Amino acid sequence: MNKYMQGKIHSFKEENENRARFLIKCPDQPGIVAAVSEFLFQHEANIVASDQYTLDPQGGQFFMRIEFECPNLKEKGPFLEKDFSPIAEKFSMEWKFMYVSDLKNVAIFVSKEPHCLLELLWEYQSGDLLANISLVISNHETSREMVESLGIPFYYIPANKDTRKQVEEEQKQLLEKYEIDLIVLARYMQILTNNFVDNFKNQIINIHHSFLPAFVGAKPYERAYRRGVKMVGATSHYVTSDLDEGPIIEQDIGRVDHRDNEKDMKKIGQAIERSVLARAVKWHLDDRIIVHENKTIVF
Amino acid sequence: MNKYMQGKIHSFKEENENRARFLIKCPDQPGIVAAVSEFLFQHEANIVASDQYTLDPQGGQFFMRIEFECPNLKEKGPFLEKDFSPIAEKFSMEWKFMYVSDLKNVAIFVSKEPHCLLELLWEYQSGDLLANISLVISNHETSREMVESLGIPFYYIPANKDTRKQVEEEQKQLLEKYEIDLIVLARYMQILTNNFVDNFKNQIINIHHSFLPAFVGAKPYERAYRRGVKMVGATSHYVTSDLDEGPIIEQDIGRVDHRDNEKDMKKIGQAIERSVLARAVKWHLDDRIIVHENKTIVF
Amino acid sequence: MNKYMQGKIHSFKEENENRARFLIKCPDQPGIVAAVSEFLFQHEANIVASDQYTLDPQGGQFFMRIEFECPNLKEKGPFLEKDFSPIAEKFSMEWKFMYVSDLKNVAIFVSKEPHCLLELLWEYQSGDLLANISLVISNHETSREMVESLGIPFYYIPANKDTRKQVEEEQKQLLEKYEIDLIVLARYMQILTNNFVDNFKNQIINIHHSFLPAFVGAKPYERAYRRGVKMVGATSHYVTSDLDEGPIIEQDIGRVDHRDNEKDMKKIGQAIERSVLARAVKWHLDDRIIVHENKTIVF
Amino acid sequence: MNKYMQGKIHSFKEENENRARFLIKCPDQPGIVAAVSEFLFQHEANIVASDQYTLDPQGGQFFMRIEFECPNLKEKGPFLEKDFSPIAEKFSMEWKFMYVSDLKNVAIFVSKEPHCLLELLWEYQSGDLLANISLVISNHETSREMVESLGIPFYYIPANKDTRKQVEEEQKQLLEKYEIDLIVLARYMQILTNNFVDNFKNQIINIHHSFLPAFVGAKPYERAYRRGVKMVGATSHYVTSDLDEGPIIEQDIGRVDHRDNEKDMKKIGQAIERSVLARAVKWHLDDRIIVHENKTIVF
Repeated sequence: MNKYMQGKIHSFKEENENRARFLIKCPDQPGIVAAVSEFLFQHEANIVASDQYTLDPQGGQFFMRIEFECPNLKEKGPFLEKDFSPIAEKFSMEWKFMYVSDLKNVAIFVSKEPHCLLELLWEYQSGDLLANISLVISNHETSREMVESLGIPFYYIPANKDTRKQVEEEQKQLLEKYEIDLIVLARYMQILTNNFVDNFKNQIINIHHSFLPAFVGAKPYERAYRRGVKMVGATSHYVTSDLDEGPIIEQDIGRVDHRDNEKDMKKIGQAIERSVLARAVKWHLDDRIIVHENKTIVF
Repeated sequence: MNKYMQGKIHSFKEENENRARFLIKCPDQPGIVAAVSEFLFQHEANIVASDQYTLDPQGGQFFMRIEFECPNLKEKGPFLEKDFSPIAEKFSMEWKFMYVSDLKNVAIFVSKEPHCLLELLWEYQSGDLLANISLVISNHETSREMVESLGIPFYYIPANKDTRKQVEEEQKQLLEKYEIDLIVLARYMQILTNNFVDNFKNQIINIHHSFLPAFVGAKPYERAYRRGVKMVGATSHYVTSDLDEGPIIEQDIGRVDHRDNEKDMKKIGQAIERSVLARAVKWHLDDRIIVHENKTIVF
Repeated sequence: MNKYMQGKIHSFKEENENRARFLIKCPDQPGIVAAVSEFLFQHEANIVASDQYTLDPQGGQFFMRIEFECPNLKEKGPFLEKDFSPIAEKFSMEWKFMYVSDLKNVAIFVSKEPHCLLELLWEYQSGDLLANISLVISNHETSREMVESLGIPFYYIPANKDTRKQVEEEQKQLLEKYEIDLIVLARYMQILTNNFVDNFKNQIINIHHSFLPAFVGAKPYERAYRRGVKMVGATSHYVTSDLDEGPIIEQDIGRVDHRDNEKDMKKIGQAIERSVLARAVKWHLDDRIIVHENKTIVF
Repeated sequence: MNKYMQGKIHSFKEENENRARFLIKCPDQPGIVAAVSEFLFQHEANIVASDQYTLDPQGGQFFMRIEFECPNLKEKGPFLEKDFSPIAEKFSMEWKFMYVSDLKNVAIFVSKEPHCLLELLWEYQSGDLLANISLVISNHETSREMVESLGIPFYYIPANKDTRKQVEEEQKQLLEKYEIDLIVLARYMQILTNNFVDNFKNQIINIHHSFLPAFVGAKPYERAYRRGVKMVGATSHYVTSDLDEGPIIEQDIGRVDHRDNEKDMKKIGQAIERSVLARAVKWHLDDRIIVHENKTIVF
């Protein structure tokens, strides 16, 4: 990590040492907002951002993200968590409490094509992706140089259908060792086993190189070219055991025309993949995403 | 008003008869959200949407829009307003209370070019712009036919620099008669006096045919063409006494290239003007906009 | 047709009385451009716009659209066509010759939802869609009023699966009577028989309310909502006997988020349908589209 | 330069060894296209792409970009150039002849903020920006590490108002030594003298961090924030002696809202600056841009 990044991260941590977030999901009923805001007020916390959403106002689900400043957060945090428990219980909440200054540990998986990895490293270098990129795992050596030049450990683990189990075993040990919070599949072209995926529920973000559900599966650019579409797209989503069917986080598209052959479409698409994946990863790091059934709420 | 629209409006009113909104602006301090949400909870109102924003968290301004369902709103509404007063006073709030089923009365001003007027009438016809379009005032006869075919009164009031005062007098009488809540300048090419503007603070929405602050003033497409820009835009804003300097509500742009002459730019721009103005008007009708100094908060 | 439109059409015809276009498709080989441009030069025609495209430069297909000014076109046109034949034969061209001032006759088919029809009428009224809208055919009475108010004949032909043959017979007679060049399915919810479609090859434009090939078939907004996509789209295409599989002319998309329910998605999507269909129709009217296999070249 | 890039460049050169381009600008008159295409046909060249544009068809300017394949181009190139001269003379053409496989030599100037430089290096690394990045010149040491890690020479030349002359002298010597074809000001915050600019007419591309002509001059993000705009933009243009007034090559914008403070606007804007500059540079390298008076034709 160079000095520029170190400085960025240092000042981010300092600015946010008293800042925390609640992510909440529970059955809707009157009084939730009142209870949560009253709780924060009693604990001398000042709300700086609050988003809420009710799915199906009659008897539906309630979702909330609330960010606040609280003096002496380091000391008071554990008490906040403890005191919040009865409220959470009363409203049957699923909830998370996060300290903004605790950066998440991220592992990036990549195969041959480096564009998505490069984008993440770019954002990381310029201080816009605030996380610890703890390691990069690849089934190819291609990206070693650029990863190591940033002081990030690079692990080459060759993979194919037959070795899947051992490979994932090796990967899991690394993920444990580095205490990884988020796995980003930055164009990692190996299928993960259900077992692996279940271990990291809503913690694996993938980028698919089409506007899902169009062109689910392999070779989307080739099929887009053959169909004669006028736009190509990309989709970032949490990985579930159903290939390309996980909750969508973000999508975007770009224009193509008859002059663009399959190779051009791929080039145009790669620029979209880069930004769609980067946005999804940053939203996850900012605790902006709540998964509900097969969809995401992105605050 | 045709039967299709009547049906749309009728079912909208029915669906929203128990729905109301608060728009709030006050100095930031801890406890505001707690107080408002506790108040609603006590009055058996269920929050269905809530947005808030704090400008400059240290000693800044707090803004809130909160929409709720309350059984028997018609009867309880006045009590809600009355009971809210002490809270409003405590936090030095500027606030508004709105019944969603009370449609606003809108006057549209237009000159020769009908595209923005047509868009608003289009949205009105299809039930997407939920308001009473009470009258159209124009300094040209061009649009009379299409306006009257929808059963909307059309007033032709010729205007020029020298008759400004009498013209505005006539206009004001009409606006009063129809109890107008919002004036939309849908490409009305006459300048309004400060006196007129001051009478309708944050109640007049204009569409300017450029991406402000580029090309403030007259003939923006001509100047855009001469400068060789690669995009043309449009800006909707509240009208203040400073021409083209009022709080911006919405902007958008469209691509042009060297093949587009001034006339083409105008055509491309007009499609943008249409949608930018329609969005701004709908946000205003939905009570989504709070003006603060020379800016808008759009929830 | 009101006076404003009559004026627009009149001046368009006058400005373009000496303007014509060639649309050309042939196997690629050296010398095509030289032959065509030399031909026009010999006939005193000045090229004002020229586009060409070669699909697969090695032994592929060549496509060209060329627009030119030629003094006394009315008289010289037939000779131009006759003299061009040997060149066309030499290069095995499929070609069309069009006078710009000859407006095309258009029939619009619509069912209940009027938004796409309204957009086309809007563009027609404002002089941006230069064609004769000769008639509107619908299996519902809903749009009669707005169509007839513009002086356009409206034919109500109820339709269902069992009456398909008679219905299409009736429609064909009308299309013949009005010498229709282009049929626009502006949300016409009846399936056409292969027989009907074959009669109007590359002359029927449909709007599908999804970003094809995602959500082929019925209820795309419902399925988009269930899948949790972050964008909805629309696709205009020529109709072939394969439902939703014809050559795509234009596509566009709009953002949605978790707050948008199925109804909201539909509203957002309808605005996209309107503009996507209008663009496709205008490109067809401008002779900008060449169909090749299952794709379009749009110049 | 790493092996991946070397491979990309090598295969690009091989694929394009027989490919060349003409860029043409002349007064419009009949017969130009016929003459140029006949010339290429006679020289056994096959046109693979051709774009033309006539500014003001009555007595205006004609612009053309034509790309072709010609067997044994290396040997025949000089004869092509020589033989074309009489045609060029006849039509009073300004023209350029370019071999596609001759990569241009590029110098990048940068100050403290590295995002635009990084984007160019990114595109360069991934083989999408096909040029020789010959050197980077900066008045700060910040970017030395990342530049040198790619094997590109980095020159630190401190600069301020008073040393402008000596600084530019030093820069000119470097530009000469490296035979530079294009200078990219990737957020270089020093003003260049007219003398320097005149030396590199239409060879210096700058990125300005606003949607010109809005916010000409210093601190555009700060001013955009104060004005309350709903979009921020970026503009790439050729540098002329008039600051921020040179011919615009490309512009783009991104949405902001009331939640975005000046710092957020800057972050959103920087992503736009990156892509707008990269597009402009790539179009220049592809010989797609013709400057005419104060505008660009971008084919």
